[in-house]
Amino acid sequence: MGLRYMFNKILYPTDFSDVANKAMDYITKLKEAGGKEVIVLHVIDERAIGDICLLYASRGSVEMVRRIEEEAWKEMDNIGARLRQEGFKVKLRVERGIPLPEILRVEQEEGVSLIVIGSHGKSNVEEMLLGSVSEKVIRKSGTPVLVVKR
Amino acid sequence: MGLRYMFNKILYPTDFSDVANKAMDYITKLKEAGGKEVIVLHVIDERAIGDICLLYASRGSVEMVRRIEEEAWKEMDNIGARLRQEGFKVKLRVERGIPLPEILRVEQEEGVSLIVIGSHGKSNVEEMLLGSVSEKVIRKSGTPVLVVKR
Repeated sequence: MGLRYMFNKILYPTDFSDVANKAMDYITKLKEAGGKEVIVLHVIDERAIGDICLLYASRGSVEMVRRIEEEAWKEMDNIGARLRQEGFKVKLRVERGIPLPEILRVEQEEGVSLIVIGSHGKSNVEEMLLGSVSEKVIRKSGTPVLVVKR
Repeated sequence: MGLRYMFNKILYPTDFSDVANKAMDYITKLKEAGGKEVIVLHVIDERAIGDICLLYASRGSVEMVRRIEEEAWKEMDNIGARLRQEGFKVKLRVERGIPLPEILRVEQEEGVSLIVIGSHGKSNVEEMLLGSVSEKVIRKSGTPVLVVKR
């Protein structure tokens, strides 16, 4: 890839955690090095939805999932507005699935040149046991990854 | 940290592998986003030196180690020349030790704002078993890490 396009199209997977928000500052800065477009991706973890459906089955799980998606879109719209204000072309994607494969699928589909990701997500305990999503992304992606720390 | 200094002082650990060389292109590009200074770090793995000394004990291990250091400095000087040509302030460091702790020590000592590192080093088989040095750096460092892939 030519130097010119190194930071051109950025994939930004976010779970709306503090460190994911911090990563946005780095994306903003990369505008100066040729950053043009940001694909913002939030994956609604279908395993978590499964748990919620079990918990709330009697109280309307469909309604619950709808609310989760609605909340996610609110966050996404805020992120989108901020990045557009910084001069980026922005695409927002909310996907249902398992985070790692969804992130890798979107990386391929969009042909991004860089992934910017927080080092840890929200589920700290699980990550201590299983490794963080970002570690797996780094291992599996074909694209350079900028890992932003807490 | 202010936006201004995000990519200001870059630590670039290298084992002179192809992917480490590729990482240099990304450093060059980061100049546009405020990159000013690069600390180039090569760690001569003292565990490997131990092996060499055992192998070559009868044929002068001191001479062997001296040659390894000499070769390392040749590579370092080339890297330094290239980065200076790109307009960076450059500091070259060759350290003896174990790569991970040396990288983290230099990160602290130099107060860098970013680490740029290749995803894999030269010792592929060992890394498949034990995980790559860069994975460990990402986990332990306090600084954002840009991981460049093969």
